Amino acid sequence: MKALVYKSVGEKSFEEHAKPVILDPTDAIVRVTKTTICGTDLHILKGDLPSCTPGRILGHEGVGVVESIGAAVTAFEPGDLVLISCVSACGKCLYCRRQMYSHCTSGGWILGNTIDGTQAEFVRIPHADNSLYPIPKGADEEALVMLSDILPTGFECGVLNGKVQPGSVIAIVGAGPVGLAALLTAQFYSPAEIIMIDLDDNRLTVAKRFGATASVNSADGKALDKVMKLTDGRGVDTAIEAVGIPATFEMCQQIIAPGGTIANIGVHGKKVDLHLEKLWDRNITITTRLVDTMSTPMLLNILKSGKIDAKLLITHRFKFDDMLKAYETFANAADTKALKVIIEA
Amino acid sequence: MKALVYKSVGEKSFEEHAKPVILDPTDAIVRVTKTTICGTDLHILKGDLPSCTPGRILGHEGVGVVESIGAAVTAFEPGDLVLISCVSACGKCLYCRRQMYSHCTSGGWILGNTIDGTQAEFVRIPHADNSLYPIPKGADEEALVMLSDILPTGFECGVLNGKVQPGSVIAIVGAGPVGLAALLTAQFYSPAEIIMIDLDDNRLTVAKRFGATASVNSADGKALDKVMKLTDGRGVDTAIEAVGIPATFEMCQQIIAPGGTIANIGVHGKKVDLHLEKLWDRNITITTRLVDTMSTPMLLNILKSGKIDAKLLITHRFKFDDMLKAYETFANAADTKALKVIIEA
Amino acid sequence: MKALVYKSVGEKSFEEHAKPVILDPTDAIVRVTKTTICGTDLHILKGDLPSCTPGRILGHEGVGVVESIGAAVTAFEPGDLVLISCVSACGKCLYCRRQMYSHCTSGGWILGNTIDGTQAEFVRIPHADNSLYPIPKGADEEALVMLSDILPTGFECGVLNGKVQPGSVIAIVGAGPVGLAALLTAQFYSPAEIIMIDLDDNRLTVAKRFGATASVNSADGKALDKVMKLTDGRGVDTAIEAVGIPATFEMCQQIIAPGGTIANIGVHGKKVDLHLEKLWDRNITITTRLVDTMSTPMLLNILKSGKIDAKLLITHRFKFDDMLKAYETFANAADTKALKVIIEA
Amino acid sequence: MKALVYKSVGEKSFEEHAKPVILDPTDAIVRVTKTTICGTDLHILKGDLPSCTPGRILGHEGVGVVESIGAAVTAFEPGDLVLISCVSACGKCLYCRRQMYSHCTSGGWILGNTIDGTQAEFVRIPHADNSLYPIPKGADEEALVMLSDILPTGFECGVLNGKVQPGSVIAIVGAGPVGLAALLTAQFYSPAEIIMIDLDDNRLTVAKRFGATASVNSADGKALDKVMKLTDGRGVDTAIEAVGIPATFEMCQQIIAPGGTIANIGVHGKKVDLHLEKLWDRNITITTRLVDTMSTPMLLNILKSGKIDAKLLITHRFKFDDMLKAYETFANAADTKALKVIIEA
Repeated sequence: MKALVYKSVGEKSFEEHAKPVILDPTDAIVRVTKTTICGTDLHILKGDLPSCTPGRILGHEGVGVVESIGAAVTAFEPGDLVLISCVSACGKCLYCRRQMYSHCTSGGWILGNTIDGTQAEFVRIPHADNSLYPIPKGADEEALVMLSDILPTGFECGVLNGKVQPGSVIAIVGAGPVGLAALLTAQFYSPAEIIMIDLDDNRLTVAKRFGATASVNSADGKALDKVMKLTDGRGVDTAIEAVGIPATFEMCQQIIAPGGTIANIGVHGKKVDLHLEKLWDRNITITTRLVDTMSTPMLLNILKSGKIDAKLLITHRFKFDDMLKAYETFANAADTKALKVIIEA
Repeated sequence: MKALVYKSVGEKSFEEHAKPVILDPTDAIVRVTKTTICGTDLHILKGDLPSCTPGRILGHEGVGVVESIGAAVTAFEPGDLVLISCVSACGKCLYCRRQMYSHCTSGGWILGNTIDGTQAEFVRIPHADNSLYPIPKGADEEALVMLSDILPTGFECGVLNGKVQPGSVIAIVGAGPVGLAALLTAQFYSPAEIIMIDLDDNRLTVAKRFGATASVNSADGKALDKVMKLTDGRGVDTAIEAVGIPATFEMCQQIIAPGGTIANIGVHGKKVDLHLEKLWDRNITITTRLVDTMSTPMLLNILKSGKIDAKLLITHRFKFDDMLKAYETFANAADTKALKVIIEA
Repeated sequence: MKALVYKSVGEKSFEEHAKPVILDPTDAIVRVTKTTICGTDLHILKGDLPSCTPGRILGHEGVGVVESIGAAVTAFEPGDLVLISCVSACGKCLYCRRQMYSHCTSGGWILGNTIDGTQAEFVRIPHADNSLYPIPKGADEEALVMLSDILPTGFECGVLNGKVQPGSVIAIVGAGPVGLAALLTAQFYSPAEIIMIDLDDNRLTVAKRFGATASVNSADGKALDKVMKLTDGRGVDTAIEAVGIPATFEMCQQIIAPGGTIANIGVHGKKVDLHLEKLWDRNITITTRLVDTMSTPMLLNILKSGKIDAKLLITHRFKFDDMLKAYETFANAADTKALKVIIEA
Repeated sequence: MKALVYKSVGEKSFEEHAKPVILDPTDAIVRVTKTTICGTDLHILKGDLPSCTPGRILGHEGVGVVESIGAAVTAFEPGDLVLISCVSACGKCLYCRRQMYSHCTSGGWILGNTIDGTQAEFVRIPHADNSLYPIPKGADEEALVMLSDILPTGFECGVLNGKVQPGSVIAIVGAGPVGLAALLTAQFYSPAEIIMIDLDDNRLTVAKRFGATASVNSADGKALDKVMKLTDGRGVDTAIEAVGIPATFEMCQQIIAPGGTIANIGVHGKKVDLHLEKLWDRNITITTRLVDTMSTPMLLNILKSGKIDAKLLITHRFKFDDMLKAYETFANAADTKALKVIIEA
């Protein structure tokens, strides 16, 4: 089969690769019909994630059709149309029992990281019963690809952890795909104000279209003033960090109101300053989280009900054989204005 | 009347001072019968808190007898025996309505800070109805002095924020008075293990007597190893920071288990490093809090029920006229082994 | 001044009445500019509420202008435009501290019940600082009348207590004004399905317009079957009882899914059957609540943000002098299709 | 093998029975080393539970040694010492994902109910990985038998659902084994007062020994007065119903304070009266629950830490061959003062 393989730092290849086989009785093999590319895939290609070693097929998102199942798989049968979760969960360990699937002792985010992933014709899914989801009849498969990772990430790490509430005032720092996913799913809780902060006017325009009530371009160094003006000097109840660098985490600390919550989604490569000398008496909460995808059943319900248009995130579509072009488009988002790209078999 | 006055950086005086008078209809004047000294008072004397200016009577803890009340005070009458909360609350502003009294827009921690405090024969208490508590008949007044600040601080900032749960494993970094207050009140929730970490063997011995299940002297730089050994390599569910310096906050980040909570109590004078490069995917929570004393009614109930011996925290007793000796004893805790000192009229 | 007075069972009068005066330093006198009629007012007139005795001015909703204030009122000044809460709160008692204002030991729902109410030119508001809310500039006063009682009632008793969640399936039994208020505010949490159940096709049509995703006319005795069909045989996560009779509470017990919540809003005049022989092992929750109006600040924010059109509830408008006509219209809702009526000075 | 079999209403037999075998790859066969009898077993023998049909081996509690495992069992190996949970959980269905194992779509409480149980030499445990728990080295096996059902039932259905909090006032109606289990585990949260209510003075004496702060014999019909006296006329924050008849549920409704919670544990055979005409505005919560045993890992931790002496519940011990004598002793608890009996191989 064809697959996108991480070869070495800076090098990838779209090449022939052996088809995966069932290794454990709880495995399923899925024929991938639609997949996509994540910012994390680009990080891996830069050599930022030592856990992912050369030779690995990338990708942790997609939908597909079950090809074969191990002896202990009971929830799925060959031919079933399924959503692939970016996180594999055994359903048994102490972390899985707490729905903290991200830290499953024999799972977590392993697809396209420590085992081969979904940017291939076929993929092996461990712990299939807890890591695949049946796709309801008539569902839009493209929209569902957004449920593998980006929507649960924005929702769980940003919105749930950030305790977004009806009537509250929130800011999202970073209007890339994950920030926009937080923006879409924050609206499940009807905050009164959603302030989007970014350096790119195009992304801010997109954010307004996605439901932001205000946007702040932070390029001029005056974001703090602008946010304080928008909030009568009080700051925001929730600040969602969706970039992953010290400067954006710093901004979150500046704009947070007493009693507020900073929810970090960003993948950070270095330590940040935490201004406890100012924040120790401000009654704030800071959270970090690798997505658990425990919200997937809920997100499937809400997608079905039409409360959210997940396809807003999709800007480009490619055939599977144009995988490298898809990567090029996604990697040059500043020019191509790409958010999520769909790659279909 | 006599009072302990902050004169200038490093200088205090026990001197004659005008008696306070009712300024607002919601004020009460309380004759102080017992008070104590807080670590924060020492910080003020060092000049660490710019909000507190020379000429200020210090002290934010104590019990006393209501001397007179303003026209709008309805919950108390002259002669009532009362507990003084370190936090004044108007009961009306948006923060008070959320029980976040620490950020009351016309109150908060002002006693012995921006207005004159309790280390005096008399003290003016603003917003008396929401800032004083009736002392139940037969209650131990010395024990109640521990409810002005130190017990709610340990409980709210450490235990409640730290989400201590039955069966959980917690560590408290710092076995000073506030760490010990967290230790006492953590036991309300029956954690399975309470690991106390400090540099001072005497304090660790005290901690064992107060209910710690394990103690770790971190002087040898091997605290992390020891905690991991005690927790089968998993780390702790809750780490309570009760010191307020970068090194102890760093330790909390090292020993926290995935999904755990770091609850900061310490008053920090400088920024700390936050290792988001390691913690971004560990699903942890960090909290800060200035005590709200919203738990005071509950603590009064639990004290009355005998579930906790608050007097364990009291090591020394002084007459009011020995105020300066009390300060000397408290300031030299390493030698005197002082925890809390009672100063009585 | 003119006022609507409850004279005896079945008798009311729109008559001259002495203007209220300040009795306590925390009182305010408010000139009522807009008020409305509640189903509870009709109950009082039928003699159903012994707490309300003849001679009482009815009404517990409205907006107005502060006329005068007692010496201890600090949050308002004469001339301020204010929202009147149906619940008076001292802000000091143990219930108020828990935001359970409905059970304030010197307040609660007393307006138009145990003290004179808002269906008059002027009204005395006890505990004014905690029982009035400033009206933001430019706000729609008619919409704000819906915040005195009906919206917080639907939201707190139905939606908050019912734990409505994104993606959940809820049913509201009773499409009268309070059921519709629950319907409007349930959408703050983006449930996937909202099933409205009533006997009146007109009200069900209104409900669809207000956002219900399905409607069930229960007149044919087949509501249970219909709800089960709509929920794949599982039942609903939340059932909101908005009628107040045994039959509707019975229906809630039948349609609730394992793990679900029945939130009672209805004012019940007699006991109901609770089928513990079927429900003991179904892991369900049942709640009751008199509105606390603790959500008023949040509802003001959300109204301001335009997330909800509170005026949808208003069907008729009357001048103050047409008070009796307003009552007639509201009392004959089946014919007049009245939901809420606005009575303006 | 020998087993206790339900033969027909009122008839049981201790007889030879075929040894169970692995039916599904997720099954384990466990050699039972210690088991016990539950009040529910007596209900079954009276014919009260139609789900349990004649021919069934009873029993849903115990500890044992894994004899053999199915191909998909990964958490256990033959020879492992294990705790058997009364509830079987697949770990995959929507209910299991919410930790509501009691309603597992292919499990729940099936042991000794719809499949053969633990009062036998061997038992088949479906979904073994999620339904057995490893027994830590050195643990007291007798104490652990109390973790199969009675302690999690008292804790989850009574204490957790009842929201017992530090400083709160609770009442437990019924001082039988399950009421006493609630009493033991309620102390994890340090309530200020625990009032035990029963008709039997002996059980009330036991309750005092187990930690009750007050006891009320309700035989004289004055329980309400006594509880009100004990609570200054306020009632209790939590009322735990641990009997299962209308009279005791009625008492819970009478003694509950505004804002309180009634947590039902009792297995009810008929409907009860719910006095909504009095309770609709009291802001109370009523919960029902079949135990989920989601707290088992926590209870194992807390047992290990010695915070609770589970063996207080054990009054009698029998050899496996004396099964019928054990039943006789347990069934005549009024005379024998039996709480839980241990039956060991």
